[in-house]
Amino acid sequence: MTASLKFVNVGIIGPGLVGRALIKQLMEFGASNGVRIAGIINSKSMLLIKGDDWESAVKDWPNNSETSNMQNFTAHMASQAVPVMVDCTSSDAVAGQYPEWLSQKLSIVTPNKKGFSGDMKLYKTLSQANQNTYVYHEATVGAGLPIISTLKSLVRTGDKIVKIEGIFSGTMSFLFNTFSAPNGAPESFSKCVGIAKDSGYTEPDPRDDLNGMDVARKVTILGRVAGLDISLDTLPVENVVPEALRSCQTSEEFMTKLPEFDEHFGKLNAEAAARGEVLRYVGTVDPSGKSCTALKAFPNTHPFASLKGSDNIISFITERYPVPLIVQGAGAGADVTAAGIFSDILAISDRHN
Amino acid sequence: MTASLKFVNVGIIGPGLVGRALIKQLMEFGASNGVRIAGIINSKSMLLIKGDDWESAVKDWPNNSETSNMQNFTAHMASQAVPVMVDCTSSDAVAGQYPEWLSQKLSIVTPNKKGFSGDMKLYKTLSQANQNTYVYHEATVGAGLPIISTLKSLVRTGDKIVKIEGIFSGTMSFLFNTFSAPNGAPESFSKCVGIAKDSGYTEPDPRDDLNGMDVARKVTILGRVAGLDISLDTLPVENVVPEALRSCQTSEEFMTKLPEFDEHFGKLNAEAAARGEVLRYVGTVDPSGKSCTALKAFPNTHPFASLKGSDNIISFITERYPVPLIVQGAGAGADVTAAGIFSDILAISDRHN
Repeated sequence: MTASLKFVNVGIIGPGLVGRALIKQLMEFGASNGVRIAGIINSKSMLLIKGDDWESAVKDWPNNSETSNMQNFTAHMASQAVPVMVDCTSSDAVAGQYPEWLSQKLSIVTPNKKGFSGDMKLYKTLSQANQNTYVYHEATVGAGLPIISTLKSLVRTGDKIVKIEGIFSGTMSFLFNTFSAPNGAPESFSKCVGIAKDSGYTEPDPRDDLNGMDVARKVTILGRVAGLDISLDTLPVENVVPEALRSCQTSEEFMTKLPEFDEHFGKLNAEAAARGEVLRYVGTVDPSGKSCTALKAFPNTHPFASLKGSDNIISFITERYPVPLIVQGAGAGADVTAAGIFSDILAISDRHN
Repeated sequence: MTASLKFVNVGIIGPGLVGRALIKQLMEFGASNGVRIAGIINSKSMLLIKGDDWESAVKDWPNNSETSNMQNFTAHMASQAVPVMVDCTSSDAVAGQYPEWLSQKLSIVTPNKKGFSGDMKLYKTLSQANQNTYVYHEATVGAGLPIISTLKSLVRTGDKIVKIEGIFSGTMSFLFNTFSAPNGAPESFSKCVGIAKDSGYTEPDPRDDLNGMDVARKVTILGRVAGLDISLDTLPVENVVPEALRSCQTSEEFMTKLPEFDEHFGKLNAEAAARGEVLRYVGTVDPSGKSCTALKAFPNTHPFASLKGSDNIISFITERYPVPLIVQGAGAGADVTAAGIFSDILAISDRHN
């Protein structure tokens, strides 16, 4: 590193589990490596860091915070050299502020899928290169796994995407790896959902995972990065929640009634097993117009079949990779998500140094 | 892209299969995207491109070339804005020129392993960050697969490497995937070597693959990127060539005598199969001092066991990824190697734009 190292100034919006893991990683990275924290904000309070001793200020936080004011926070960040806004929320409203941030020359790094899977006009604004202002979102798909960067590299170097397919939801991964193991003696579907819920792999209401929308957002993002005009509104999304249970008022009611459908899911599973296959909930990006999310059967020998735990896996079939390029590993969790964000921050640092 | 886009000027050294695939990819990328070819050189002739119409000059090549002169080529490249030397050779002598290139502010991109797996002093020179002059070598391991970039990102964001293990040689991959398939009825080892040779997967003398040195160089590179003081001279490398056949004068003599050792390899394979395992030739980076290359047995359910064809696979076990992060896919071939180089060229373009 040279004497003229330009520091990146990070502003953290919504420091929950992921944001706190990121703060820890940045503190361990140390003061001399080109990244410092310039501010932290949540819905109630904020910390605007002035002066060089950012590490002491972060250590004192939240004791040294003041009342939250997003406008003042943004102005504070815009006054920094090489500012990067890190949106650690999953909020549509925060994503709605990205164009304003960009107009103030604030770079953006985020695991928040909303800005990239919603309005196409917003996506186009975010994906346009803009000298010295950058938008990176590796952690929107697969947390810290090199998925978005790999796809971008394939596309930029002129490879042609034939099909992208993967298991992008840690919840769906865990659920079907448990329910439909190769050569396994299956538990009932409702019991597997219960295990996933009790192990902390699901949202408080498991239907928020089973409806496929999280996977659909990731398919939309991957499709757009691949250059497709793909939209959440028109993407075929398979909702695994039985139709009769979508109107249950509470997750308890849903969990109580789910066993009524064990026979249905058990039959699907048994039919797949008879063919030497397992069930997996996958997202597919297919430039021929067949992008979707769906519960599909894969042979026991397929890489998707041997997936373990809540791991993600993605398979890129391209002109240059007729045998797929595959990336797999933990696709959720605070530490790996924070590492994905951190890596994007370093990419911005590289572009300024 | 903005009006002030800075073009990267690429000089291609040693345009063989990979270099020609790269030229094709760069030509398809087009003149307006920020990369152009400024020169091409091999041991006999060279082309120094002057003026804006580089595409016509490249199309005319080699008819418009002059006598090769590395000193003039280097001076020509040094006179370009944002020059990148792309070493497509596997030459020690060319790698020896890297320090001179760097001193002239020439960035370097290469699949040539020699400079990164040889003398530690040279490696340190190459790995030192230097404002506006960069060295990228993604394609030294796994061609276009995101291996070096993934490892660098893990290390930079503060993750701790526990173990890196992989099948890094397309030849060794094909050979042992054929010889030692899960539940397969094996052909003899010598026959499998013959199939690999006849299919074009080996060097003209298969001993140049079987000696493990290609894998050892990759382990050395990965270990160094991971921050280890690892050296080819002291790395334990398993040579699969039976000791008695190392002194054979010709590859024909080697191939003729290899069947004498079929019983030895068949026994190893049968013993592994009896344990539900297969044989794989792997490279291991282990910060506890146990880095090596070796023929090892893996359970039939291990991701290494289900590898197909000549694919590469790499498994990163780290503090944040106790269940490994895995990358797999084609790790050799002109098009994917060229794409790995191209991606590095674009990374340098990004750092200047």
